[in-house]
Amino acid sequence: MALHIYNTLTRRKEPFESVHPDRIGVYFCGPTVYGDAHVGHAKAYITADIVNRYLRFRFPDKKVTYVQNITDVGHMTDNDDVSGEDKLEVQSRKERKHPMEVAEYYTRRYFEDMDALNITRPDISPRATGHIIEQIEIIKELLTKGYAYEVNGNVYFDVAQDKDYGKLSGRKAEEQESSGRVEERSDKRSPQDFALWKRAEKGHLLQWPSPWGMGFPGWHIECSAMSMKYLGESFDIHGAGLENSFPHNECEIAQSECATGKKPFVKYWMHNNMVTTGGVKMGKSLGNSAYLRDLYQQYDPLSLRFTILQSHYRSTTEFTEEAIAAADAGYQKLLSSYHRLLQASMGLPVTGLEESNSLVREFIASMDDDFNTAKAIATLYDLSTETNSALTQQDKGRYATLRSTWNVLAGNILGILPRAASTQSDLTEKMDSAMHLLIRQRKAARDRRDFAASDAIRNELDAAGIVLEDTKEGTTWRLK
Amino acid sequence: MALHIYNTLTRRKEPFESVHPDRIGVYFCGPTVYGDAHVGHAKAYITADIVNRYLRFRFPDKKVTYVQNITDVGHMTDNDDVSGEDKLEVQSRKERKHPMEVAEYYTRRYFEDMDALNITRPDISPRATGHIIEQIEIIKELLTKGYAYEVNGNVYFDVAQDKDYGKLSGRKAEEQESSGRVEERSDKRSPQDFALWKRAEKGHLLQWPSPWGMGFPGWHIECSAMSMKYLGESFDIHGAGLENSFPHNECEIAQSECATGKKPFVKYWMHNNMVTTGGVKMGKSLGNSAYLRDLYQQYDPLSLRFTILQSHYRSTTEFTEEAIAAADAGYQKLLSSYHRLLQASMGLPVTGLEESNSLVREFIASMDDDFNTAKAIATLYDLSTETNSALTQQDKGRYATLRSTWNVLAGNILGILPRAASTQSDLTEKMDSAMHLLIRQRKAARDRRDFAASDAIRNELDAAGIVLEDTKEGTTWRLK
Repeated sequence: MALHIYNTLTRRKEPFESVHPDRIGVYFCGPTVYGDAHVGHAKAYITADIVNRYLRFRFPDKKVTYVQNITDVGHMTDNDDVSGEDKLEVQSRKERKHPMEVAEYYTRRYFEDMDALNITRPDISPRATGHIIEQIEIIKELLTKGYAYEVNGNVYFDVAQDKDYGKLSGRKAEEQESSGRVEERSDKRSPQDFALWKRAEKGHLLQWPSPWGMGFPGWHIECSAMSMKYLGESFDIHGAGLENSFPHNECEIAQSECATGKKPFVKYWMHNNMVTTGGVKMGKSLGNSAYLRDLYQQYDPLSLRFTILQSHYRSTTEFTEEAIAAADAGYQKLLSSYHRLLQASMGLPVTGLEESNSLVREFIASMDDDFNTAKAIATLYDLSTETNSALTQQDKGRYATLRSTWNVLAGNILGILPRAASTQSDLTEKMDSAMHLLIRQRKAARDRRDFAASDAIRNELDAAGIVLEDTKEGTTWRLK
Repeated sequence: MALHIYNTLTRRKEPFESVHPDRIGVYFCGPTVYGDAHVGHAKAYITADIVNRYLRFRFPDKKVTYVQNITDVGHMTDNDDVSGEDKLEVQSRKERKHPMEVAEYYTRRYFEDMDALNITRPDISPRATGHIIEQIEIIKELLTKGYAYEVNGNVYFDVAQDKDYGKLSGRKAEEQESSGRVEERSDKRSPQDFALWKRAEKGHLLQWPSPWGMGFPGWHIECSAMSMKYLGESFDIHGAGLENSFPHNECEIAQSECATGKKPFVKYWMHNNMVTTGGVKMGKSLGNSAYLRDLYQQYDPLSLRFTILQSHYRSTTEFTEEAIAAADAGYQKLLSSYHRLLQASMGLPVTGLEESNSLVREFIASMDDDFNTAKAIATLYDLSTETNSALTQQDKGRYATLRSTWNVLAGNILGILPRAASTQSDLTEKMDSAMHLLIRQRKAARDRRDFAASDAIRNELDAAGIVLEDTKEGTTWRLK
């Protein structure tokens, strides 16, 4: 048994073997920080998170380093204009702030939104503006090797010089580019060439000195520069949303491999599919996007995470109220088993994961199959059934092992178990004290046969979003 | 009446007049991110926070931009070696991580620790490694103008060329430097010269190409580069811990003013004093430092903030268990008034601040006097007395105004009112529902003269850290 990953580069599932024996490098394209994160970001970075969590579980002897960039320069607006405008500059004019203030603000909010989804932070979050030198160095190398040319302070990659261009996407043509992110200027030799460095127009706030005059890097070059700086010239996994496979990732391969003398840039390319509603892609540019912050007013972020994990990362996720409600019903069922087990097993020692257990093996087999979280979740329902049955039979000898199984599979790997955030832990503890007092008040009311009083406590708590559950072991509480 | 600031440069209190009519630029030296924040950081950044909060209150028509750097390269260890080592590199060897992973980790924890102290985030948190080009540009300018010289890939500032060197600290001598942060190499023309750029030794991970070969910037140059980039060549306020006035801030002035043709770099220099315990400075290098994270296990972070604000920023803060306990007693007294008022005034409309009120005028006068938070807090005790008396007399016409006074003075300006963090608000609300049920249970027990039951509720809550307070308006609750 081995972990298999669907590699966009080869169009098949391949067994995973790390480039280096002792470490694994993972890079996913990060957000452009000119607005709040939406459900598309949730799907992309939950995918990255699952990859990192599972690699860390599966290869405990290798150091997994996860790098995810912050794009704060060079990403142009999509429009029909031949040049487009830098998204950060546009937003900075709207907000009457320096582009770096805009970047600071949305970067912070981005991480808050991701934290709520229980997404582990990247080991390194490099910023494009913080790596201008590294980008210039690659461009200089490409010019020296004849893969790039300069015209009037702009530097372009010369696609005709790279026979491998197109190997990721199977595309060389520029049909997408006139509506896309690659600047199309009249001074290009060929319309498919793409910008590595752009001359700064008058009034452009984001600009730096370079051998070609004042300017700023193109969007694609940042990912080549930052991934290779921190992970080496050849590394294991590069992920992105499917829409970035061309031209963005294709250009990354061309730049990186031409600069390093055709060393293979990335071994496994992973692309996650989109989030749809009514079959239509959700995304900011289409106007039907749902910002995560708005969704969090209505839904538990972990329930949204669960909804996304119920479809495979390479499938689309249909994100409607009904779909979320259906997923949440299943999620609450799992949580209810887990919480009852937690309370019943309080004080028991921590055991390791029982790797011979058939449920555990089934779960690992699903995850080994290109991170099939949908199938892995199906196994959790079996775990829930087994847990409920152990609790009913008071089979206490099983409690500690079951708890470890939940904690590793649902907690460490899938990241769907609620964990008290450090800022909440104190309040959670006090809340627990208050709730246990209330539970005893209710019991006392029942004992004196004042059922009106005991029912009132239960109903009022329910209305406040707090559920009491009566089990053989006594009454427990949880937030809805 | 005008805001007066003690200016280290002129050694007197001066009326504050902003450099530009419509904006105010503030820069404080940020942390070197190779370890966790300690109480010294708390004092420095609470000082910065008070400055920013008060400027925003006092000058609502001016845009206050607060820039605070992250030092992730160039800050050398203090030791007797002539060159020292980069603190990030040393830590990265210890943790067996890339220096940028170390920086990422401690930057995140730094902001978590500052958030807990209710310190508003900077508008821009630039990283030294993200501004290498900007630092190189200033060094080139200094070389061109004859204020610097290059030897073997190192560039030094030539102190003898700058007649103004020493104007901040009154010091020119290098007595501190051999034990300090400025590299002392044999290739300097004079021992008082300081490094602008250092040649990278073999194996140094943090290095970039420059006109002088591969290397990295000195510590001082980063603050010149990042403050001027985002605030302009002349800006309003630059703050730091007193220990940084020489050589760090002195060198900043020299570099900046020599590069810009002697434009005044900073108008007001502010320096906060240290935190002591038993009269001895607390700090990491002395081994008696208290990490904030450890203190938070024992103390409410806002109570620590209150303790620090009880002494003026230019005085030392004595930080002992007794001092914190004494401060906390006062703090709880203030909070008790405020919380009773909050509950009594629920639903009342928000009024503005009553600027003619003598308490408000007194508070502003204290803050105008070089941010005298110690005196401002004394006024809050009068506000507490006035509030308690209004509540006792049920003088409801005063409630809304009093509430606004608390919210602006203690909340917006001093930042000592607890605010439900967004992640906590949901739990807080549910906790409130549960507590109101419990309060009614207790009342019901009393009504049926079951005082054992009603006392038990109160005592158990007290043991859990939840206080019930019986007032004329009914029973309220708060966390201890």
